[in-house]
Amino acid sequence: MNKVYIAGIGQTPVSESWDKSLKELAGDAGLMAMNDAGIGYPDALFVGNMMAITANHQAQLGTLMADWLGFHHKPAISIETACSSGSAAFRMALMAIASGELESALVIGAEKMTDSPGDEITASLATAADAELEADFGLSFVGLNALLMRRYMYEYGWEHKDFANFSINAHANAMHNPNARFQEPITIESFKKSPMISDPINLMDASPVSDGAAAIVLTSHPIQNGHKGVSVIASSSMTDTLSLQHRKADTGLTAAETSAKTAYSQAGLQPHDMGLFEYHDAFSIMAALSLEAAGFCAPGEGPKMAIDGKIKIDSEIPVATMGGLKARGHPVGATGIYQLVEATLQLRGLAGANQVKRAKYALTQNIGGSGSNIVTHILQAE
Amino acid sequence: MNKVYIAGIGQTPVSESWDKSLKELAGDAGLMAMNDAGIGYPDALFVGNMMAITANHQAQLGTLMADWLGFHHKPAISIETACSSGSAAFRMALMAIASGELESALVIGAEKMTDSPGDEITASLATAADAELEADFGLSFVGLNALLMRRYMYEYGWEHKDFANFSINAHANAMHNPNARFQEPITIESFKKSPMISDPINLMDASPVSDGAAAIVLTSHPIQNGHKGVSVIASSSMTDTLSLQHRKADTGLTAAETSAKTAYSQAGLQPHDMGLFEYHDAFSIMAALSLEAAGFCAPGEGPKMAIDGKIKIDSEIPVATMGGLKARGHPVGATGIYQLVEATLQLRGLAGANQVKRAKYALTQNIGGSGSNIVTHILQAE
Repeated sequence: MNKVYIAGIGQTPVSESWDKSLKELAGDAGLMAMNDAGIGYPDALFVGNMMAITANHQAQLGTLMADWLGFHHKPAISIETACSSGSAAFRMALMAIASGELESALVIGAEKMTDSPGDEITASLATAADAELEADFGLSFVGLNALLMRRYMYEYGWEHKDFANFSINAHANAMHNPNARFQEPITIESFKKSPMISDPINLMDASPVSDGAAAIVLTSHPIQNGHKGVSVIASSSMTDTLSLQHRKADTGLTAAETSAKTAYSQAGLQPHDMGLFEYHDAFSIMAALSLEAAGFCAPGEGPKMAIDGKIKIDSEIPVATMGGLKARGHPVGATGIYQLVEATLQLRGLAGANQVKRAKYALTQNIGGSGSNIVTHILQAE
Repeated sequence: MNKVYIAGIGQTPVSESWDKSLKELAGDAGLMAMNDAGIGYPDALFVGNMMAITANHQAQLGTLMADWLGFHHKPAISIETACSSGSAAFRMALMAIASGELESALVIGAEKMTDSPGDEITASLATAADAELEADFGLSFVGLNALLMRRYMYEYGWEHKDFANFSINAHANAMHNPNARFQEPITIESFKKSPMISDPINLMDASPVSDGAAAIVLTSHPIQNGHKGVSVIASSSMTDTLSLQHRKADTGLTAAETSAKTAYSQAGLQPHDMGLFEYHDAFSIMAALSLEAAGFCAPGEGPKMAIDGKIKIDSEIPVATMGGLKARGHPVGATGIYQLVEATLQLRGLAGANQVKRAKYALTQNIGGSGSNIVTHILQAE
């Protein structure tokens, strides 16, 4: 597949938004990315979103955003793979450009979750699980992750507090990100004292329900936008069984592992070449499993990397460099684009206090469902 | 964009399905298409669907179908553009193959609407309109089409009965389609006596809420499957404003017109070259507007073509050759794939009693919302 370039990026603050609708948030991010690229209207619009039809009573969000942004008579679609919808939309845009059909595209990831009562959002999130085999029996999405975490603790002998450093690191990084939902640090004590949600997952293990939108303009050729160029050198997507009960591995994210290996192979690179890893820390158990699946440590050793400080900005593999899902926030359909926008900021050298040192290659991995839909990308500073 | 080939097709009967779930319907269609192609597992799965998250409490239908069909560790996504979701998914698969990233893909369009109470389905269908500007004020989707029809009748002087021949033709063709929802003929009298739904749209102007799934295997190269080869020689998608009130044209489907013109231009062909037209007759007003937008007659003359018999199988431009949305049925996210499957049957020369004579080129046009998201394809018999 031909190389594709990131020509513009935009993001709104992740928040509980009372003064902007889903359309306005997505529009703001889209306009920022278009202004950043400075090429006028791209050829098409791709929107990653999970739950607008339930949370906002709005289907065909792609068409709505094309209308709102003034994409007159251009194509627009919505793409959905639960929590990996954002990067799945990005990947579709990549292929559409590589096909020669488009020269440029705007990709928006957007979600507005806080307009709905908590029970409705819990129900909407549960649709990411297998309706017949999981959700219909009352398993919530956090419940599924709790099963994974409990099993992982049993298999590898970790205690709940051993996961604290994933969240502490995410909050520490979010302190310097003006777009992050939570810009305050947390400690091991506050982690331990946090209220239980679904044993063993407590509030500090979990990413927050949020509103937000992020956007990227992709082009078939490099453009001059005043920033260091960034290109996409690997794109790999894979699925696993939707239900946890059918997985061959009790805890390991085998589709994430295979997707990461495929991406490394496409780029001709190894894990140690990566200058940062925007991982999918929707829950602290997912942070541990993602580190392992992406080849940064052996199965069962994720928490040790966090405890040893090997995931900090200036360490072995900086993760969640702008706060991650845990502290930047997790507006589900937008998250994949936030990851890619943040990785681009790092490769452009514009990540401020959180700037990583080796800003040549960035790995992003977005996970839909409990490890069932994986989208992995590697970006390169030109 | 490189030419892409239709290697396999499958479809379930359109019905009110009590013994098969959404997953089973979609799986049956997918397996039929895979058996027809005979190339084993394609490289990826694309699902077109509008309302699984509301009607079936299931997001990431792409992942679920990859799981159900045994696409181990392969990519899968869901694509949504309201009623044009099926052909939007088909177009994404086309571009993914043309990019070189995939050599083959399975595209499934699926919808199961009849498990939900009528008011819930009406609410789900209304999400295809603009939530803030239309649906929130109580406008249903049929209500929007009624506004369009009323205005069209006012502008061009047609009476309600003048639309009857669209529905009569659809039912006449569906009599010979074992997969059609309604296999009985209707008459001008039954059309006139049919109960009013949303004045001037009565029951015989409207396509039925239905369950169904259709599927296509696409390949980068022609394969030998025992049938006449069929390729995709044009693919064009365009959006218009989501809300009717913002349209420049009172009734004309300008995005559909531009999309059709672009497709003709891509193929180097004209309307009169088409051997059939699978149009989007969700309502009889859409049948009239589609004929006009696709260049088969001037604005306001759609009903005359139907009255003059120029849309029948053996006439100027055969439409809805297997019953169309009106009589084959309209499981919304599946409809675009049904259209493409039926066009393929015609180009293979396998349309039985409904076989058109000039089976060289087929035009399909799928419409999401009230003319807001258009996907047009031209298929060619090799």
